Amino acid sequence: MRFDLAFVGFGTVGRGLAELLIEKRSLLERVYGIEWRVVAISDIKLGSVVDEKGIDLSEALRLADSGRNLESLPSQKKGLSPIDVIKESPSNTIIEVTWTNIIDGEPGYTHMKTALSLGKNVATTNKGPIALYYRDLMDLARSKGAHLRFKGTVLSGTPAFNLFEGPLSGCSVISLKGILNGTTNFILTEMEKGDDYTTALKEAQRLGYAEADPTMDVEGMDAAAKLAILTNVLLGASIKPGDVKRKGITSITPQDIQDAKRKGERIKLIGRAEKEGDKILAEVSPTSLPLSDPLANVMGVTNAITFKTDCLGDVTVIGPGAGRRATGYALLSDLISIASTGLTFKKD
Amino acid sequence: MRFDLAFVGFGTVGRGLAELLIEKRSLLERVYGIEWRVVAISDIKLGSVVDEKGIDLSEALRLADSGRNLESLPSQKKGLSPIDVIKESPSNTIIEVTWTNIIDGEPGYTHMKTALSLGKNVATTNKGPIALYYRDLMDLARSKGAHLRFKGTVLSGTPAFNLFEGPLSGCSVISLKGILNGTTNFILTEMEKGDDYTTALKEAQRLGYAEADPTMDVEGMDAAAKLAILTNVLLGASIKPGDVKRKGITSITPQDIQDAKRKGERIKLIGRAEKEGDKILAEVSPTSLPLSDPLANVMGVTNAITFKTDCLGDVTVIGPGAGRRATGYALLSDLISIASTGLTFKKD
Repeated sequence: MRFDLAFVGFGTVGRGLAELLIEKRSLLERVYGIEWRVVAISDIKLGSVVDEKGIDLSEALRLADSGRNLESLPSQKKGLSPIDVIKESPSNTIIEVTWTNIIDGEPGYTHMKTALSLGKNVATTNKGPIALYYRDLMDLARSKGAHLRFKGTVLSGTPAFNLFEGPLSGCSVISLKGILNGTTNFILTEMEKGDDYTTALKEAQRLGYAEADPTMDVEGMDAAAKLAILTNVLLGASIKPGDVKRKGITSITPQDIQDAKRKGERIKLIGRAEKEGDKILAEVSPTSLPLSDPLANVMGVTNAITFKTDCLGDVTVIGPGAGRRATGYALLSDLISIASTGLTFKKD
Repeated sequence: MRFDLAFVGFGTVGRGLAELLIEKRSLLERVYGIEWRVVAISDIKLGSVVDEKGIDLSEALRLADSGRNLESLPSQKKGLSPIDVIKESPSNTIIEVTWTNIIDGEPGYTHMKTALSLGKNVATTNKGPIALYYRDLMDLARSKGAHLRFKGTVLSGTPAFNLFEGPLSGCSVISLKGILNGTTNFILTEMEKGDDYTTALKEAQRLGYAEADPTMDVEGMDAAAKLAILTNVLLGASIKPGDVKRKGITSITPQDIQDAKRKGERIKLIGRAEKEGDKILAEVSPTSLPLSDPLANVMGVTNAITFKTDCLGDVTVIGPGAGRRATGYALLSDLISIASTGLTFKKD
């Protein structure tokens, strides 16, 4: 398959994909029959270029990494809006990696709708639109014969729901629970070393794990958005992030953590979902887990999910939940998945 | 795709698959486009039947589970040898689940060669032939346009190397390490509770985890066979189980386990492999791991592997490594993989 790619957004994650595309070009062609060129890049800070002959991606990376505008690149069209780039570029696949907004999903939601309506595939790591409009977007994609892939919205490139397209196909998920947010797991890990919440948060901010306004992470909203995606995809639900019962970690004290330790337990911010009859239970909350639970031993910014399945019982996956290369890889695995004419994921 | 299946071997694992085929019949058809019938069953204890109209699999299960001969089932041919069943049954896919022999791989190796030579697909959980002859068998399969799948040889149905066909496609494995044998992990877990090696082994035997002659498990031979498979498939090596440096757990004492515990560590029988230039290092040995290592917290008969990958760093998978249903599922996932016209695994 030949991908004519348009990047909408060219921040850390988009550039992570760009690097992997360059690094793995020959592997992609040889093993997966994938050829690619980038015909457009649009970024709110870096400008936008369209070049049907193919943009020099290494040069684009060089410019972007040094904060310089991309419009110095050769191009047929410059300065188009993201929507016009999606519409007018000779692209067949849109890499949607603009910022996450879990209130109304914009602008990503409109980007995705526009692309899919034109029959263009979308690969994205943008949680907002998927957490809010998964079913609508999938229906639109199917009706247009386009693919929508969003591996990187949960656990970055670490296998999560895409397990059930391949290695665990035919298995049903009965319930799931996971550490879906690395920032809060880092803070809890630091607190176990003796820090109080505020000190641990500051350290997370210093290392770039937490944002200046950490609300999304520490109040469990990021985890709730990811849990909504998992629940909708794997349990056939139709919930919104706001339907997830939610409690963050801001009131956890060093004393709570020591109390858990004395009982041979460890406090983790756990997202869990299960089906009870027709009802879906989905919740994010600090949970004291016995150390025998694989999730109890996942430390730092690492993420993990335990799936309870009908065929295998518990299967746990542990891996990175963020990072330029790991999240860029999520998009690469989406492209490989689109290119394979293999299993199309259908939830029964 | 329509599978005309011949079971060669109809013990625990084969029956595990049979149950899942029946249970998941409508899902397989609806989601994966798979139809199946069983045209032959051959078992050293239960006899052999061939029926081109399709064997009543529920009835075959009922007979087998009560230890009764299968030759009371309606059939065109009875009493054929396994080789003749492979040759003469109107099958397109052979479920090879005879006993494991890691010395010369027989009789499974001849079964597989016979099937693949005829262009029949093979799905197997039989470690011996794959550990010894992976490349030969794959070459034969490719030359005949047949598929060879062997998910269940390592970690049963828990995703392992099949991760790299789907969710982790495009990633390269730099090194891997894992708990590949449930019996020894169970024994070490029991020893941590205070048992000595002999008592723990007896408990494993009582529960059916260890055989009367436990050599294969406790001397690390089973783990070495699995490690050879992983190493050949994921690191592009051509090693035999005998090339794996190997030490078992028979000399581990309760004192060793307590000493590790005092250091915040835990002893596990670890199989590890990595590439150093052109050289492959593959070793199975008791290893004292810090408790911060995800593998250190895998207890009982559970299996686990940590893959160090170029795209994601460490990814760990934890799940069952044995069991009727879990291993039967490995074969089901093999069939789904064959039926998908998706990615064919090519090692670069």
